[in-house]
Amino acid sequence: MGKVEIVRNSLPMSGGDGPNSYSKNSHLQRKTTSLLKEKIDKLVLEKLNAKTLISSDSNTFRIADLGCATGPNTFFLVDNIIKSIETSLRKSNSSKPEFLVFFNDLPQNDFNTLFTSLPQDRSYLAVGVPGSFYGRVLPQSSVHIVVTMGATHWLSSVPKEVLDKSSKAWNKGKVHYSNAADEVVKAYRDQFGRDMEKFLEARATEIVSGGLLVVGMCGIPKGMPFSNLADSIMYTSMADVLTQMHSEGLISEEQVDTFNIPIYSATPEEVTVLVVKNGCFTVESMELMDPTAWLKRPTNVEDVRHWMVCIKATMGSLFINHFGEHLLDDVFDRLTAKLVGLTEKIESSYREKVMLFFALQRK
Amino acid sequence: MGKVEIVRNSLPMSGGDGPNSYSKNSHLQRKTTSLLKEKIDKLVLEKLNAKTLISSDSNTFRIADLGCATGPNTFFLVDNIIKSIETSLRKSNSSKPEFLVFFNDLPQNDFNTLFTSLPQDRSYLAVGVPGSFYGRVLPQSSVHIVVTMGATHWLSSVPKEVLDKSSKAWNKGKVHYSNAADEVVKAYRDQFGRDMEKFLEARATEIVSGGLLVVGMCGIPKGMPFSNLADSIMYTSMADVLTQMHSEGLISEEQVDTFNIPIYSATPEEVTVLVVKNGCFTVESMELMDPTAWLKRPTNVEDVRHWMVCIKATMGSLFINHFGEHLLDDVFDRLTAKLVGLTEKIESSYREKVMLFFALQRK
Repeated sequence: MGKVEIVRNSLPMSGGDGPNSYSKNSHLQRKTTSLLKEKIDKLVLEKLNAKTLISSDSNTFRIADLGCATGPNTFFLVDNIIKSIETSLRKSNSSKPEFLVFFNDLPQNDFNTLFTSLPQDRSYLAVGVPGSFYGRVLPQSSVHIVVTMGATHWLSSVPKEVLDKSSKAWNKGKVHYSNAADEVVKAYRDQFGRDMEKFLEARATEIVSGGLLVVGMCGIPKGMPFSNLADSIMYTSMADVLTQMHSEGLISEEQVDTFNIPIYSATPEEVTVLVVKNGCFTVESMELMDPTAWLKRPTNVEDVRHWMVCIKATMGSLFINHFGEHLLDDVFDRLTAKLVGLTEKIESSYREKVMLFFALQRK
Repeated sequence: MGKVEIVRNSLPMSGGDGPNSYSKNSHLQRKTTSLLKEKIDKLVLEKLNAKTLISSDSNTFRIADLGCATGPNTFFLVDNIIKSIETSLRKSNSSKPEFLVFFNDLPQNDFNTLFTSLPQDRSYLAVGVPGSFYGRVLPQSSVHIVVTMGATHWLSSVPKEVLDKSSKAWNKGKVHYSNAADEVVKAYRDQFGRDMEKFLEARATEIVSGGLLVVGMCGIPKGMPFSNLADSIMYTSMADVLTQMHSEGLISEEQVDTFNIPIYSATPEEVTVLVVKNGCFTVESMELMDPTAWLKRPTNVEDVRHWMVCIKATMGSLFINHFGEHLLDDVFDRLTAKLVGLTEKIESSYREKVMLFFALQRK
């Protein structure tokens, strides 16, 4: 290849380790519940020929976590993977390799916090990789396992039609495709399709033959309207809060109409189509799971409050970029109050199979 | 290997990109004067068999800059190396490889500034590597060229004897081994020896056979007393300033006596001994050079002021850690005033061959 194409977007989690930071409020994103750990274990033991992968190379086993944010979840996830690989290698009487872990996130991510909180007793070499995973971020044929948990439902950007007044997909007064016009839903779906195509293309170049790509993201059963989900209630309430704040003169109508959350929940079926189209991977696992903690939705008032603290840490920078830092607390105070009043409705929303888990093997 | 041994110290350059930052005040460290560029070009063309190195691997050429700070000098240095390698490959009719650059510095370095200031049109994949280069920071046999400019004269720590009241090396009232007791000089020299041993050992593991290690650091001709150098005048003035501030009750005697700058200027001869002892490298170049800009010492009053701005950006965190942030400006205002008065003396100090440049090839 010639010049590496570098794709950018700008949606870092809240940095630092203060009370509003992602690193202190990522409990819901905690990525390694026992169920997920079990799945990854099984994949490593059954699908990955760690011994062959390493010996054909330089005795270094290379792992990447894409969209790692600032920790600490990424450290638990990586530790579990390394333990699985060590178990696998012990079974085949192989010597211990060195482990290299690529921690990737957007250049605006707080890598300083990530680096200074790396576990002191870690058994791997760590590097940080700034860049959008919708483009190339790692060298060709360089990684044995790539994981990404809770990141690929973030689109590379808001679909441009949604921001276009003259388009049928103009998403006036809403912040998401939930309950929106069909054209809005299609614009989000198409954007996800283009993004996932780029994602798979980049990973196909980066992952060695026989290597694994393991993804956990927001999912939804085929045919289910998004409005059945707890998140739909949140997005509707967000729009209500913003409309209210506009009526109080705090923000402009233009600001409300052009604010959209670029998150998409995919079905297993549509991802399968994209994987087949890409052609470089076999599907080893493709399923909707009951949400792990990082996708768990609230069931009581205390949960709702805590949920909103986590959403604020995760989506805060979107609001800051669009409305300014001074309105962040106001938005989330209003949103939390509103959602606390809707606890019963949230409780009765669909909350079962809303995590899409898939594992692909590089041909 | 089992667990990777991770060595730490804590001496980052000043972060951010504000008026006191390293990124805005590293002109004197500007690393790629034409002379240095010429030397690196020549090494790459004559010594490095880029074609063989890449084809025996994965078509990825890997470069590391150890002690890169926050840029921008590291970007110029890396660009020059890549251009040299491309020239070399064109001559042998090889196809263009991908380039991966490891930017290394201490975990406390401001990687956020480094990452967000990466050139947008760069032709390489970039990763950040947090960790002390006196231990392992890169995977085994993973890099083709390692460069480090203006970093290896920083010791991993102040020699402990120098801080020990009961030792003959107790460096009371001084901030450096310049003009100090023989025992102090020996303590610094021994510390440098131990550090360079670790440095070479780690690099021997990381650099592929045939790969290059290129180092620029503070140097001094064999047998020359450090007191002949401009830096000696600076260190003596620093001690004077601190003693004065103690007499004004601003800092304690204990604070003055335990403050030492862990910088060592090596001779070509002592580095050669350490390289031979290590046994993994051949010496391709070992010489004292007239200083490149990053080591250039001042010749007039304006130069002296500018020199101090750069020294403040480089050594500021040492002072902050020891005396507190509130005294930093005071120390440097006094130091600058003092040195401005000594411009003639600085002018007449030895300023010729004070940069040690060496290039080693991994056997």
